[in-house]
Amino acid sequence: MKVSIIGSGNVATVMATLLVKAGHTITEVCSRNPEHAAVLAAGCAASVAGSLQLLSGDADLYLVAVSDTAIPEVAADFPHRDKLVVHTAGPVAKNELAPTGNRFGVLYPLQTLRKELTYIPEIPFLVDGNTPEVVSTIRILAESLSSTVIPADDAQRKHLHLAAVVVSNFTNHLYTLAAGYCTDNAVPFSVLHPLVLETAQRLQHFSPASMQTGPAVRNDSTTIESHLVLLQQFPALQKLYIACTESIQEYYKPGREA
Amino acid sequence: MKVSIIGSGNVATVMATLLVKAGHTITEVCSRNPEHAAVLAAGCAASVAGSLQLLSGDADLYLVAVSDTAIPEVAADFPHRDKLVVHTAGPVAKNELAPTGNRFGVLYPLQTLRKELTYIPEIPFLVDGNTPEVVSTIRILAESLSSTVIPADDAQRKHLHLAAVVVSNFTNHLYTLAAGYCTDNAVPFSVLHPLVLETAQRLQHFSPASMQTGPAVRNDSTTIESHLVLLQQFPALQKLYIACTESIQEYYKPGREA
Repeated sequence: MKVSIIGSGNVATVMATLLVKAGHTITEVCSRNPEHAAVLAAGCAASVAGSLQLLSGDADLYLVAVSDTAIPEVAADFPHRDKLVVHTAGPVAKNELAPTGNRFGVLYPLQTLRKELTYIPEIPFLVDGNTPEVVSTIRILAESLSSTVIPADDAQRKHLHLAAVVVSNFTNHLYTLAAGYCTDNAVPFSVLHPLVLETAQRLQHFSPASMQTGPAVRNDSTTIESHLVLLQQFPALQKLYIACTESIQEYYKPGREA
Repeated sequence: MKVSIIGSGNVATVMATLLVKAGHTITEVCSRNPEHAAVLAAGCAASVAGSLQLLSGDADLYLVAVSDTAIPEVAADFPHRDKLVVHTAGPVAKNELAPTGNRFGVLYPLQTLRKELTYIPEIPFLVDGNTPEVVSTIRILAESLSSTVIPADDAQRKHLHLAAVVVSNFTNHLYTLAAGYCTDNAVPFSVLHPLVLETAQRLQHFSPASMQTGPAVRNDSTTIESHLVLLQQFPALQKLYIACTESIQEYYKPGREA
């Protein structure tokens, strides 16, 4: 497929790399940030479109990978009414692209993507479109990029996006605060990597509720109290320690419906 | 080495498996729970000691893998003053074993261990002992079990145990609440596995603070508000959503010292 990319951030960059790797052609890159557009275009042998009005009509698909709030502006200014336009945003309704014309949809990568990565992780795609033909076209493209492609409407995509925020953004922040705590106490955070990996990996075999360990689920108040003392100089981590501990104790309280 | 195991829970069971796999011999298993002791002993061709008083004097090392609060009782009743005794607890001081005699220390597996696992994950060990000879003996044993063995005193072990609770127990609870949210909304939690794994794996290459993504760090109040509405029927997850979001916004607030 010939793909035109609108945007030049993390998602645009990783999607361009992935598309090229799968044998597709990036025809052009269009971005509010001309320097980023030039870097991305050079990286995938594409040309730069200086504005939405200058987008060529040559591409089979226009991939809108801009910030959620910029999607309506792009939709309003998109110049080719007969072309297939998709956005890549979890929480944005597909109809936000209705102003672009007759064929629009969503290709949402359910993964945390950063330009800096030198490898591309496995990316499940959630796909949607305004007609069965559009869904089918987006699906075929997605299947050339990933072994996991799932049709999902706006509501399903929103739910999975919310869950993604919880299991990725929030856990990453816990890693951040724990890493800071280790640094300040001169112990190596890196020695926790195998634990972090195993906690994530065993989800493939067991439900997380059945695998809960630690002082909170054991109601081990001696350890919890001593941790709260250790955290007196770390108020941000102390706050989340208390919130998570209370949540775990509430969840596993005897008599609570599982 | 000939190892006698006191305890029959998750840590005792995984340690026994690991020791046998590394060529050591389990001489006996002693546990308050005679059925669990029988199962574990049968699994590693060991005999059962019916009580601490009945522990043979044949082992080179006595591995105390019981709950933190039971360690003082085991220490008080341990019958062989000249034998090497180690516990496996992160937050428990090594001197809790001083009543056992002259040679005692710690062999702490920095990993989340469950009997149910059919595989053994990579386990870093933190080691300590009351004399250099004891540290050296425990270290040699640990190095036969793992490629990561680190000397750590009581304070260092406590700090790493606290960080382990944060990066493993708390993240696992976030997985639990997110999985429940997905189930109740009829979307497949399993499609999030690659995201969970990638969030964990990239810690090996990047600092978590440099990789933070999501609505909180972007101050995307539209998405945050819509998530809080979606979470109205999920008060436990809503509470942690708010706590984590506020913590991320505070951490990345402009002007805050990084």
